[in-house]
Amino acid sequence: MNNLALLTDLYELTMMNGYLNEGMSDRIVVFDLFYRTNPCDNGYAIAAGMEQALDYIKNARFGEDELIYLQSLGIFDDRFIDALRNFKFSGDIFAVPEGTVVFPNEPLVKVKGPVLEAQLLETALLNIINHQSLIATKAARVSQAAQGSPVLEFGLRRAQGPDAGLYGARAAIIGGCAATSDVLAGQMFGVPVRGTHAHSWVMSFDDELSAFRAYASSFPDACTLLVDTYDTLRQGVPNAITVFKEMRDKGVKLKNYGIRLDSGDLAYLSKQARKMLDAAGFSDAVISASSDLDENLISSLKIQEAKIDVWGVGTRLITSLDCPAFGGVYKLACEYDASGKAVPKLKLSENPEKVTNPGDKKVYRLYDADTGMFKADLVALERETIDFSRDLTIFDPMATWKRSTLAGGQYTARELLIPMVVSGEVVYQSPSVMEIRDNCRRELATLWDEHKRLVNPQTCYVDLSQELYDLKQQMIKDLRR
Amino acid sequence: MNNLALLTDLYELTMMNGYLNEGMSDRIVVFDLFYRTNPCDNGYAIAAGMEQALDYIKNARFGEDELIYLQSLGIFDDRFIDALRNFKFSGDIFAVPEGTVVFPNEPLVKVKGPVLEAQLLETALLNIINHQSLIATKAARVSQAAQGSPVLEFGLRRAQGPDAGLYGARAAIIGGCAATSDVLAGQMFGVPVRGTHAHSWVMSFDDELSAFRAYASSFPDACTLLVDTYDTLRQGVPNAITVFKEMRDKGVKLKNYGIRLDSGDLAYLSKQARKMLDAAGFSDAVISASSDLDENLISSLKIQEAKIDVWGVGTRLITSLDCPAFGGVYKLACEYDASGKAVPKLKLSENPEKVTNPGDKKVYRLYDADTGMFKADLVALERETIDFSRDLTIFDPMATWKRSTLAGGQYTARELLIPMVVSGEVVYQSPSVMEIRDNCRRELATLWDEHKRLVNPQTCYVDLSQELYDLKQQMIKDLRR
Repeated sequence: MNNLALLTDLYELTMMNGYLNEGMSDRIVVFDLFYRTNPCDNGYAIAAGMEQALDYIKNARFGEDELIYLQSLGIFDDRFIDALRNFKFSGDIFAVPEGTVVFPNEPLVKVKGPVLEAQLLETALLNIINHQSLIATKAARVSQAAQGSPVLEFGLRRAQGPDAGLYGARAAIIGGCAATSDVLAGQMFGVPVRGTHAHSWVMSFDDELSAFRAYASSFPDACTLLVDTYDTLRQGVPNAITVFKEMRDKGVKLKNYGIRLDSGDLAYLSKQARKMLDAAGFSDAVISASSDLDENLISSLKIQEAKIDVWGVGTRLITSLDCPAFGGVYKLACEYDASGKAVPKLKLSENPEKVTNPGDKKVYRLYDADTGMFKADLVALERETIDFSRDLTIFDPMATWKRSTLAGGQYTARELLIPMVVSGEVVYQSPSVMEIRDNCRRELATLWDEHKRLVNPQTCYVDLSQELYDLKQQMIKDLRR
Repeated sequence: MNNLALLTDLYELTMMNGYLNEGMSDRIVVFDLFYRTNPCDNGYAIAAGMEQALDYIKNARFGEDELIYLQSLGIFDDRFIDALRNFKFSGDIFAVPEGTVVFPNEPLVKVKGPVLEAQLLETALLNIINHQSLIATKAARVSQAAQGSPVLEFGLRRAQGPDAGLYGARAAIIGGCAATSDVLAGQMFGVPVRGTHAHSWVMSFDDELSAFRAYASSFPDACTLLVDTYDTLRQGVPNAITVFKEMRDKGVKLKNYGIRLDSGDLAYLSKQARKMLDAAGFSDAVISASSDLDENLISSLKIQEAKIDVWGVGTRLITSLDCPAFGGVYKLACEYDASGKAVPKLKLSENPEKVTNPGDKKVYRLYDADTGMFKADLVALERETIDFSRDLTIFDPMATWKRSTLAGGQYTARELLIPMVVSGEVVYQSPSVMEIRDNCRRELATLWDEHKRLVNPQTCYVDLSQELYDLKQQMIKDLRR
């Protein structure tokens, strides 16, 4: 990722200039990056984008071009422009590893550093992490619907710009897709790429059969024929079968071959095509389908017992069409005073769910010790020491009478936020995208099916420690006084 | 834009390899880039992204890294890899200038060149033009709702990745926004940037009044205070008024000052705030509002006579939240045989509206000669000569009994597609983004209000010439035989 120092909202820079003027720019603060609602009414989200976020932080510098431009705006002080000349993030960043299952109101990223520096990161971190977490979550839903059949990400042409295609493909793989059509994503992230031919290939030949023959001759080892250019069942499938027979007769060892359906009634067409292929002795021919698919259509086709082996999902995955924004926010949680004492910060709101969680915090994930399955997340203050060998009572911070006690020894705890940047140096080595995908799959396996349901999932609780809860209530009272 | 040669679906490359193997790669073809439905049920779309599309074409090259990667996939022939080594688009591109008002089923871009080259461009052209046209169209809708009040694009943090923020800001300005918060867009495209401060600024001070005073002291000439951190009407607006009074008392000449509302009932709050500001003698204080706005909420607030002067629009503009994909497609329209004769191509579909328009085509926009207002678009074959000084009968290609005759002398015609690339060289100099914005505004002024209505707009007709219509009907008959 290039130098994206200017990829920011103007107000970050005006605030930074203001902090400098007020002599506050070195004050150490903590910002939390979190979100309030799961996209698509899902039961969870998949965190993604941290690798690119770290790249951004590493490279965010203001060169002469940037400084000259900022100066030309006529709103900044010269002293501030000078300060930017030496800008380099010098603080700490804690974050959940990519592919982690996350829930509303817990920090995915915690930025601790001088306010002048930490403020700048807001917009770009949100941009990168909101986008990739959105698409990873959508991909997890689509993969869930596909029940183990491969899902291919095919959306580049409808993505919101080149990056949306590229990093969207990355996130889609993290969330569970088997491959992408995006060749640049393949090169950059080492993920599998897949694809066959378009209608224009068929239209370029005098007839469909010639087009199929030509394709088979060029790609005998990966021969998926698109059968809907003229008439799927009357021309496309019969022509494909003719070509497969010709290949078989020539002694070609057929593997990775089949047809793709791209329009029409996919339930009906796939069942008919399956019968026709089976009858001709091609029961291992793969039937792929694409055509404005998403998790809902795939679920419906599964219920109808459509004979579809591979799902190509484009527009509705790469844009997360029915919920195209992930609502991550970046909120001031804490400030350290001159003596190093933490001064928690809280933003009020008319809406109780929008009141922020104050203080420098950490997050634990609690698992059942026997099954290894998810129990709840617990957000606590950084300064707290919790003895996880003892009984632990947790409660819903919005309805405190909803509480349960985990018996000591029958649960385990894992800290979710890990150090990725320490004193300005990136100390975290991102795993490969395929490793992140595996991690994500393992994470998802710790959730019950009820949490992963596509509609009305059971809530995964994110609880506050008693100390954090009490602090929050006290601060609300003080601010309303 | 960097070298994005690999920003493509894998199948473009497999088809290209196939064309090479079949000895077809030099065959001259024509692809049309068009769309079938206006986004958001709008009455038109705004074409955008051509400047970046031309950059892409100019820079699309396969270097050694790209070739080594492609070779590693094990699916391409060495001869094809060699051919890519010398890849450079050598054909012609005709397109509508950015900011042009466009309609379904007419080419926005026409690519004419050797099939091996023209095929590659498909994915990236669609990606770039789909994205920017989507956001430009959405911005035109939002600006329409704002009825002349400035709309500021504030969506970077929720955009689908860095490019979506950057080029989305560009497209939003083209469609009518007055400025963006995205500083990089300001630097790269020379467009106005705007912004003030966030809640975290207020929370960084002991109290709101101190925060406002500090901001006013740093930015006396552009002092917009965010008033909803704690309590808009009981604290925020009174504190802002206190600070404005202090500035006035100190002899500061107040200009570009005011408040921003970011939550709550914007109709009620803006009216109350207006009264309070007016009563304190600050009737020129600007009231800005943001908070998940879009064209529908702005229309509703206008009907409620909310006292909002400036609209900050974020998530729902930068993602085009209720319609986040623009359905541009790239379809083979024509092939030239060895003798240079045009062989039109057509793709059938069960759905009559999805049958493509065959042949190498051109597009005329017809205006009323007296008023200069839009009459209809007319798609004709490139080879046709139409005498626009004579009477012209046009008809709806889906309902041919809907026809009307334009009397000679009472209408004018303008060709929409202009040459941008000739024999591989870019011959078109893109205007500045602000000039494109002006062009777009002039274009929109030629549409009647009924076409620009946000809900149920009157259709702008795109008609086919008699010759093109007859060709299409004949080809459908032949293919169904």
